[in-house]
Amino acid sequence: MDESWVNSAERIGADLHLELSGPRVGRAALIRALRDAVRSGRLAPGTRLPPYRSLAADLGVARNTVADAYAELVAEGWLAARQGSGTRVAMGVPPTPLRQWGSSEAPRHAGRVPRTGPPRARGPRHDLRQGTPDASAFPRSAWLTSYRRALQQAPNEVFGPGDPAGRVELREALTEYLARARGVHTEPCRIVVCSGFAHALRLLFGGGVLRGPLAVEAYGLGFHRELLRAAGVRTVPLPLDEHGACVDRLGRERAVLLTPAHQFPTGGPLAAGRRSAVVDWARARGAVVLEDDYDGEFRYDRKPVGAVQGLDPERVIFMGSVSKSLSPAVRLGWMVLPERYVDDVLAAKGEREAWASVLDQLSLADFLSSGSYDRHVRRMRQRYRGRRNRLVAALATHAPHVEVSGVAAGLHAVLRLPPGTERSTVKAAAWQGVALDGLAEFRHPETDMPAGEGLVVGYATPPEHAYGAALDALCGVLPPQVTACAPQPRSPE
Amino acid sequence: MDESWVNSAERIGADLHLELSGPRVGRAALIRALRDAVRSGRLAPGTRLPPYRSLAADLGVARNTVADAYAELVAEGWLAARQGSGTRVAMGVPPTPLRQWGSSEAPRHAGRVPRTGPPRARGPRHDLRQGTPDASAFPRSAWLTSYRRALQQAPNEVFGPGDPAGRVELREALTEYLARARGVHTEPCRIVVCSGFAHALRLLFGGGVLRGPLAVEAYGLGFHRELLRAAGVRTVPLPLDEHGACVDRLGRERAVLLTPAHQFPTGGPLAAGRRSAVVDWARARGAVVLEDDYDGEFRYDRKPVGAVQGLDPERVIFMGSVSKSLSPAVRLGWMVLPERYVDDVLAAKGEREAWASVLDQLSLADFLSSGSYDRHVRRMRQRYRGRRNRLVAALATHAPHVEVSGVAAGLHAVLRLPPGTERSTVKAAAWQGVALDGLAEFRHPETDMPAGEGLVVGYATPPEHAYGAALDALCGVLPPQVTACAPQPRSPE
Repeated sequence: MDESWVNSAERIGADLHLELSGPRVGRAALIRALRDAVRSGRLAPGTRLPPYRSLAADLGVARNTVADAYAELVAEGWLAARQGSGTRVAMGVPPTPLRQWGSSEAPRHAGRVPRTGPPRARGPRHDLRQGTPDASAFPRSAWLTSYRRALQQAPNEVFGPGDPAGRVELREALTEYLARARGVHTEPCRIVVCSGFAHALRLLFGGGVLRGPLAVEAYGLGFHRELLRAAGVRTVPLPLDEHGACVDRLGRERAVLLTPAHQFPTGGPLAAGRRSAVVDWARARGAVVLEDDYDGEFRYDRKPVGAVQGLDPERVIFMGSVSKSLSPAVRLGWMVLPERYVDDVLAAKGEREAWASVLDQLSLADFLSSGSYDRHVRRMRQRYRGRRNRLVAALATHAPHVEVSGVAAGLHAVLRLPPGTERSTVKAAAWQGVALDGLAEFRHPETDMPAGEGLVVGYATPPEHAYGAALDALCGVLPPQVTACAPQPRSPE
Repeated sequence: MDESWVNSAERIGADLHLELSGPRVGRAALIRALRDAVRSGRLAPGTRLPPYRSLAADLGVARNTVADAYAELVAEGWLAARQGSGTRVAMGVPPTPLRQWGSSEAPRHAGRVPRTGPPRARGPRHDLRQGTPDASAFPRSAWLTSYRRALQQAPNEVFGPGDPAGRVELREALTEYLARARGVHTEPCRIVVCSGFAHALRLLFGGGVLRGPLAVEAYGLGFHRELLRAAGVRTVPLPLDEHGACVDRLGRERAVLLTPAHQFPTGGPLAAGRRSAVVDWARARGAVVLEDDYDGEFRYDRKPVGAVQGLDPERVIFMGSVSKSLSPAVRLGWMVLPERYVDDVLAAKGEREAWASVLDQLSLADFLSSGSYDRHVRRMRQRYRGRRNRLVAALATHAPHVEVSGVAAGLHAVLRLPPGTERSTVKAAAWQGVALDGLAEFRHPETDMPAGEGLVVGYATPPEHAYGAALDALCGVLPPQVTACAPQPRSPE
């Protein structure tokens, strides 16, 4: 390979530019193009990548897009970065020649060359990203028992066209479970099974059941906001304070999306007075409260607060899934709906569209009613409580100036950072193979509330044996105690 | 119960009117309301329902909406109809008292009363609706073997956040299988797994990857047209002749949706000259061909024609699913994409959104690569071929004037009927507990091609043991040979 080619930043930019033709050159496309270039050998191991600024200019994208793409690929192990010496292609990534399919003259019967993503075990060394449970703890054998029983006992009609509401066995089991565990008052005919929370949002807003403007918490998942924006829904940020979302700021919105049990990501519960206030607002305005109960089962210091839905089942849409409690791989979630929305949600879902795997639905029904779900949640609650305690203890020892905010709950914690240190800390973490997000990632772009800085640490994500090392690595990248006028870590460009 | 109340058509209309408040009183809502009224006892067994016309006027809906709702509920066993004596609530439907949840004063801890749909085994007596394979033939034990193996061998990362493209194991298995069985030329990185054909359409058009106008075949699934309409896509009908869709009528559309292997529902394959013509059109116009390969594995008289996709993988999006070959309950489908669409489809799918159950994906990958899929398809091909032959033989004996059109393929056949008999035959079938659709159901409302009349008979749907009785019942409702000026069966009003 021509060394001058490999080392020329302009050639790399030009090459990526060709790859990235199209109107949507974003972070994801750039990451894919870079991965491909490494995998195909066009970027050889050890090659130094252009600085953010020049590649950004070559591609006509924001500098942060390039910075984020590099950081992600460092975390995934494709690239390596050392402060001062720039970013290089990691050594030892085996290049996989990719058949070129660009024209219809491509050989018809050329051999199959799978592009299989990064080699196994090439994720970040320490994965502290929020959002997923410990993947090594999936209850394989109990789940298989439920799946086998469900498959063997299923009447034949299970394999025919499905009820778009989802299997009644699952809706019955959820009715019982949600009443007991979350104080949800409903009946099976008010439940619609879907493939997760994002699917629920799409059905409600993309399907024309609800319309905006929708009030949301000033901090939340960007991809939910993006999904809503794509559906033409304007979101209006509600500031957060120590009692949770400031629901007294609600005005003429038609709906509000809240995480009352454990604000995501900042970590506080919605105060009792605000729980009733938001329901009163919805009643007075003919509006609706969307309750995202994403980790409601995981509270460590007390019994979880029940769902707001219990206050008025006709004014609250309660949404949950197994993505935190079992695994996002199962792709099962549910909406508990006021009666008046059921038909419209089913119409939005589409005739004959079950969406979620019917066999998994039956398996989950069995898993719930046999007590396996309770046992699994109990076990994970214990595990995650232990991890949170270890995190708090490690910080007390190694970084006593870094505060863990929020209640003892859920699968993640927010570490408050001194002003001006968040962005550099996230990058420093990536260089050390620690993947996590800064609070800024979750901030609504239009909120006027003061920005706090911090790290969102998903302590549930690593497998049990790797958690200690992840904690050590995390403590190693936290900024030192800031004293007046202390120099800030320099950005790597 | 007050008998005068029960028997008063006006009261029934008024009662349903209350139930049906809201902007979308359609067939589905009316069916639900009527079911609820029967289930709750508000409509007692034996109660005579108002004539279509008067209920339609009461509710402000089309007469056909009421007629269709009655027919559906007759087919489901909730209502009973006899020509001349109107439609009545069926005897012996056990009323289930429904807890009233209309206000927030409803008792919080009232006992759970599941609304579980009609009692089991209360579908139509003879289900000849198209669209589903024989639900009794799902290969439970082979599937469980694959699922167990997949679950046991899965690396832990399977239970973490998924690749929105779907599991690579499945995309690899599909690449191999589709090349072998359908002549599809692709590689795993061009495949995106989804939850079925409707999901694929939503991703392409709802997600902004493709835009209309979209040419479609003049006969096709109404719910696909409806889904496209909801996504703001104008569909332009292409007439069909004995060579399939008239692709020479394609003009400035940006895409065309075809069922080349076996036109749905009319049953002919797309002629060879038209296969290449449509690809040429797409090349010349910068357009794209959507190939809906819904039942491509099921051809009985010869080896199936390969996919049009093989002619030019850069101009054709090939879509398939297991809904016909295994079961719609599995909710797995795939798109084979030209390279230029992959990123946009993944963006439309959403970050971290696998949609389809990851465990089922792994299970299907094993099912494909272990040969279980081939064995199952072979077995079902034999079974459906036998059923089609029995259908043809039964017609030859009992209704020699009724022609079966289309090639020997797929899971359904079209029975051509004499003019003016389709609608009444579908209704007569419903009265006899035979559920099937007329061709009119599938006709694009804007096509100018002459309407043929016929029945779409899903011969795959009944379980094996019930097929003979279903055939007998079908033959019993076919219109007699029409001679000049023969009286048409009267509509039941």
